[in-house]
Amino acid sequence: MDTRSIYKTQTKEFRSQWIAFISDLQNQICMALEDADGKAKFIEEEWQRNPDGKGGGGRTRVIANGKVFEKGGVNTSVVYGKVTAKMRRGLQLEGAKWFACGLSLVLHPFNPFVPTVHSNYRYFELYDRDDNVCDRWFGGGTDLTPYYLFDEDAILFHRTYQNTCDKFDEKFYPLFKKNADDYFVNVHRSNERRGIGGIFFDRRKPDEKQDLDFWFNFCKACGHAFVDSYLPIVEKRKNTSFSDENKRWQEIRRGRYVEFNLIHDKGTLFGLKTNGRTESILMSLPPTVRFEYNDKPKAGTEENKLLQVCLEPKDWT
Amino acid sequence: MDTRSIYKTQTKEFRSQWIAFISDLQNQICMALEDADGKAKFIEEEWQRNPDGKGGGGRTRVIANGKVFEKGGVNTSVVYGKVTAKMRRGLQLEGAKWFACGLSLVLHPFNPFVPTVHSNYRYFELYDRDDNVCDRWFGGGTDLTPYYLFDEDAILFHRTYQNTCDKFDEKFYPLFKKNADDYFVNVHRSNERRGIGGIFFDRRKPDEKQDLDFWFNFCKACGHAFVDSYLPIVEKRKNTSFSDENKRWQEIRRGRYVEFNLIHDKGTLFGLKTNGRTESILMSLPPTVRFEYNDKPKAGTEENKLLQVCLEPKDWT
Repeated sequence: MDTRSIYKTQTKEFRSQWIAFISDLQNQICMALEDADGKAKFIEEEWQRNPDGKGGGGRTRVIANGKVFEKGGVNTSVVYGKVTAKMRRGLQLEGAKWFACGLSLVLHPFNPFVPTVHSNYRYFELYDRDDNVCDRWFGGGTDLTPYYLFDEDAILFHRTYQNTCDKFDEKFYPLFKKNADDYFVNVHRSNERRGIGGIFFDRRKPDEKQDLDFWFNFCKACGHAFVDSYLPIVEKRKNTSFSDENKRWQEIRRGRYVEFNLIHDKGTLFGLKTNGRTESILMSLPPTVRFEYNDKPKAGTEENKLLQVCLEPKDWT
Repeated sequence: MDTRSIYKTQTKEFRSQWIAFISDLQNQICMALEDADGKAKFIEEEWQRNPDGKGGGGRTRVIANGKVFEKGGVNTSVVYGKVTAKMRRGLQLEGAKWFACGLSLVLHPFNPFVPTVHSNYRYFELYDRDDNVCDRWFGGGTDLTPYYLFDEDAILFHRTYQNTCDKFDEKFYPLFKKNADDYFVNVHRSNERRGIGGIFFDRRKPDEKQDLDFWFNFCKACGHAFVDSYLPIVEKRKNTSFSDENKRWQEIRRGRYVEFNLIHDKGTLFGLKTNGRTESILMSLPPTVRFEYNDKPKAGTEENKLLQVCLEPKDWT
């Protein structure tokens, strides 16, 4: 076996390992969420990009009208294809073919005191004309969107990811936290963030110091940290009683979530513009939403406290 | 007076006439809508692009929680500035300075049997370094977004604009109707239109046959046709009783309206990305909205009848 075919074999093996991780993560997270909800179950739909199965597909799992979760999805996909002219331009991709596999989740709880959460982990490979890997990278992250701010929840969420990051590289958390603060931004609303951030990283390429396994293990650790970073908050807040005004405010903030996803989120827009599966991509949109003209919370209110932290991100750890 | 300064004077005069028309149209439409609503009144906010008043501004008029109109706006703006590098690229504008003045309206009725409507008329001038007009054009249109389809309403709406267009040029209605069918499209949803269209035209430049006055009169006629094209439908449907399921369907379709405006509408995106007044631009978003995973109406239902006409536009006249 020459080095090139060894490399191909390793590549294939790594892809299989990554796919197994993503599939396993989907199972574990869905089970934990069903437990936390106590009523609703995920409904699964398998889909293919093309009728002949070429191009791959995905497994969309949605939950709706639960005791805790009003709407949510934990989706995986394993997709591949030729690099089109559109992708070359839009994503600055050099290569002949591509492969991507990832998990993406968004949960919209009914109770306005339980925050919305989003996570996404993905691995991408590019191949030259001889099917050799010519580039590869990892990306992902997670962010929390509370409607009311509880410092202890924000601290728990951020500390969980700080601890996870620190096991790999102490530079990661401060850098990836800043990435999230800079990414989940409604630029058209005076740079209001959609929430209190988390971590975000993209196009992380293995090198000699931080190789393929390093990044694989890092993504695994972050993915598996989801349950510990979020479910304790759900448990603590899910039975808090709330008023119509609390619900109204949640729906106003959900409007900002819609604005971010449809105007700014690169993943959403790229998926929609390159013939991705619309229903799986847009499962991220909240179930009920409200848009009111020039709605602004009054100074000194809990609503305004949340807004201020979206305008000026804080150091939570 | 040399020809150049005559031209400048004429230009200034025409701008004033157009501004007067837009302001007058806003007044007339708002009065007619308040009459039709019978309860809510428009609330006006004047805004300026810059604190020193340079760059112009607008007059936003919003109505909310009426007997008929749950949310709506009839906005005007008179804005001007230097052509920035961003505008040069994004809009392919050749020139040193620009001026724009227009009216934009969107009305979201509470009752799902009353359609949502949108209209927009605008005039644009470009100047060279010596402040001479080097280009100018008109644009605008209107489209209707019913939640339930009544053929007679669709016919009334389209015939009103067909009659208006025919007085100017019999080629206009078929062309501008097709433009609307091709523009108000959620490409990411198998080319589903947001409604049943109307008319749409852009970058219409005066020439020897159809001069400045011709286009001015055409825009005036379309603008003033609004009341006759829409209010008879409001009158006919506003007291129709409706079920929770009718309201749910309206909110689902409103979700498509949000998707179109935030993902595809050039005016919205350009406004948001070039520091326009966010609250005035986003007044177009519906008050309450619902996003459900993979919601599809059943064959044979009224909901599906509407959906089919959004997928395959019809000739209504």
